[in-house]
Amino acid sequence: MDIKSIIRKKRAKEELTKDEINYFIGKLEKGEISEAQAASLISYIYINGLTEEEILNLSLAMAESGDMIDLSDIAENIVDKHSTGGIGDKATILLMPILASLDIPVAKISSRGYGVSGGTIDKLESIPGFTTDLSIEDFKKNLKDTNVCIMNQGLSFAPAEGKMYKLRNATACENSLPIIAASLMSLKIATGSNKIVFDITCGRGTYINNRDEAKRLSKLLVRLGKSLGKDVACVVTNMNQPLGYSIGHNLEMKETINALKGIISEDLGNVIEALGSIMIALATESKDLEANALMIKNTIKSGAAFEKFKEMVAAQGGNTAYIDNPELFKSSKYIMPVLSTETGTVESIDADMVGSIAYYLGAGRMKDEGSINRTAGITLNKKVGDTVTVGETLAYIHTDEDNKINGTTQNLKEAFIITNKKINFKSRVLEIIK
Amino acid sequence: MDIKSIIRKKRAKEELTKDEINYFIGKLEKGEISEAQAASLISYIYINGLTEEEILNLSLAMAESGDMIDLSDIAENIVDKHSTGGIGDKATILLMPILASLDIPVAKISSRGYGVSGGTIDKLESIPGFTTDLSIEDFKKNLKDTNVCIMNQGLSFAPAEGKMYKLRNATACENSLPIIAASLMSLKIATGSNKIVFDITCGRGTYINNRDEAKRLSKLLVRLGKSLGKDVACVVTNMNQPLGYSIGHNLEMKETINALKGIISEDLGNVIEALGSIMIALATESKDLEANALMIKNTIKSGAAFEKFKEMVAAQGGNTAYIDNPELFKSSKYIMPVLSTETGTVESIDADMVGSIAYYLGAGRMKDEGSINRTAGITLNKKVGDTVTVGETLAYIHTDEDNKINGTTQNLKEAFIITNKKINFKSRVLEIIK
Repeated sequence: MDIKSIIRKKRAKEELTKDEINYFIGKLEKGEISEAQAASLISYIYINGLTEEEILNLSLAMAESGDMIDLSDIAENIVDKHSTGGIGDKATILLMPILASLDIPVAKISSRGYGVSGGTIDKLESIPGFTTDLSIEDFKKNLKDTNVCIMNQGLSFAPAEGKMYKLRNATACENSLPIIAASLMSLKIATGSNKIVFDITCGRGTYINNRDEAKRLSKLLVRLGKSLGKDVACVVTNMNQPLGYSIGHNLEMKETINALKGIISEDLGNVIEALGSIMIALATESKDLEANALMIKNTIKSGAAFEKFKEMVAAQGGNTAYIDNPELFKSSKYIMPVLSTETGTVESIDADMVGSIAYYLGAGRMKDEGSINRTAGITLNKKVGDTVTVGETLAYIHTDEDNKINGTTQNLKEAFIITNKKINFKSRVLEIIK
Repeated sequence: MDIKSIIRKKRAKEELTKDEINYFIGKLEKGEISEAQAASLISYIYINGLTEEEILNLSLAMAESGDMIDLSDIAENIVDKHSTGGIGDKATILLMPILASLDIPVAKISSRGYGVSGGTIDKLESIPGFTTDLSIEDFKKNLKDTNVCIMNQGLSFAPAEGKMYKLRNATACENSLPIIAASLMSLKIATGSNKIVFDITCGRGTYINNRDEAKRLSKLLVRLGKSLGKDVACVVTNMNQPLGYSIGHNLEMKETINALKGIISEDLGNVIEALGSIMIALATESKDLEANALMIKNTIKSGAAFEKFKEMVAAQGGNTAYIDNPELFKSSKYIMPVLSTETGTVESIDADMVGSIAYYLGAGRMKDEGSINRTAGITLNKKVGDTVTVGETLAYIHTDEDNKINGTTQNLKEAFIITNKKINFKSRVLEIIK
């Protein structure tokens, strides 16, 4: 067996055997094949696809390339929520304490963000002291003690998935459904979670172009879950605007804390309730989604979710003073309003554009190991459905670099589509597939 | 402009602009895009091809990535002969002194071999002291003084081509016609040669699968030559057996020296005459190929080619005692006969298999910078058309490692196809395209 034959085989649209997939992933992990060879195989997979058998084998091979956790001694059902990524997406951070406050254990292994926006871990690490570099023992201990824990995928879990992730980003294969599916499942296999809710985001600013592709990916994940003995549900959500009001690390942490105190934007609340109610349904006997949504509202209203978040932050070394007083999070030197030159109603806000601007402002990793500017980002003053008049503020740019203000102001204005039509609030949730 | 957009464009079967190709090659050369990204683009080129405009721009971009030589001050017409590679191919080494002895200047820039067999430079470097790491000044001085010189492509000529060459080898894209064509032309542009004969080898043991592909590549090279103001002729030759009697560095040097003394196998003589007579026709007013072939025979018979070779070796620092007495080249510890178990006539000898065995014995580079075993290799005792009886020697294995003898003996025997039919000698030259 050698990598060149495997490359030739996938190029010729043939199905790879389990042994061939194991060989590829094993050699990639050990650095015994070059990144060029891996990138070539990934490119042919992009074009020629993978069968479900191949995806399953790829998931297993990537999971088995590193540590595997068995959580069955902690609780029978542990939920895991995973988003395929969106601009301003802080739903995972919110749902962890919300579910945990309802006595549902939430275990999450996550990776740093390498694309336009930061990842969940990057955002949480904006809380001084907060660490996700935990041992498996500490992870399990926290989970037992507080019902919730998040850990950095780092190099110990599915390290081959980490390599594949970087390679597919570098080679414009982010939106390869079979590879996305295998990546997602490999992490879930390694984590040992058996109840998983995926938020499959689609539209601009996401990896998945449209609703049809999101549905296809969702159905695939549900089937893969079945083959692996895991309960999987997928919620397809749209990205016709960034999620919530803020994009950027410190800004999103502040919004998250406010949301846990009950101050939450309509669209973020909508997504939280949809995802959370399905998480509850998967993990418990409570199958009525409306009743579950009410439980979520109530656990926020009662302050239980907020207290659980403080508990989680404390358990992971974070300074809880920042949670009590979010104004402690540093701000950018310049906070510049972007004014509307039109009157009407906001029809959409191009999430891809907003993400790119935030990235340009420093709120994403420019290179693999690049550092993040934690204060940089964007806050939206108007969301889809809001009316706006000439001269009103659409959004604010947060930056330390005054030379970036002019260009981004113009671009951010263009991200807002203003219409004369009336725009009603529409749920961001497009489909639930399980 | 960014590399991911360029990758996406070629994946979508679109034509790349000159600027995009320059961007890709420039960034590859500077190490500002990753090998993974280059490999991904190469993979999509493999699948989706390149237009002639793209090939031309790729050739120019690769040529311009390094030094360029202008040889017009040395002679009006300088010939260059280039083979796409074959097992036991020593035609280039032979043709250099042969043409030079006929007062036709031959300038050659070559690279080390990275595949199954060694390259022309590797073979010549088996002569103690022989160097191809020359400055452009020394290269031109030698060319002026002796009419012939060979220089290592190294890192100064078309360095981007060197990178592309390694990447396409690593990713099983060796046989991508547009990339082969661009690579070949880029070297010729950098070298400044204006009369070029390509030996396009096809069949097992070569990059080009069959005669049709070889013809397509040949026609492409001739057209590209026209666009670049260069006279190009292509000779399509088959590889239904290794060329000549030996495969391996020292072994091939000994055969080369014998050939220059007039002791030459029928098939090697046939190829030398075909290629050489076209080289003469391109470079001089002597257009009659039969007359040219006779000139080649005569310059060998007279000893002029042999003396020219000694002159060339001396000018490049080589020890000419080895040329006078080829027995000075070291031999392997074990020289083991491979005996026939059949009686009949040799119909073919699988050049690919023979190449792989020689490679396994150490006569090729195992890794990028791997060292070569100069004594290892194979000598053929029977060639296509020869009769053989049970127990007669088909070939010899040359190796220092006794544990490699048994397996290779069996494999090498299988490379010989023995038939009951009568096999007449057929010219290896299939087509001449100019």
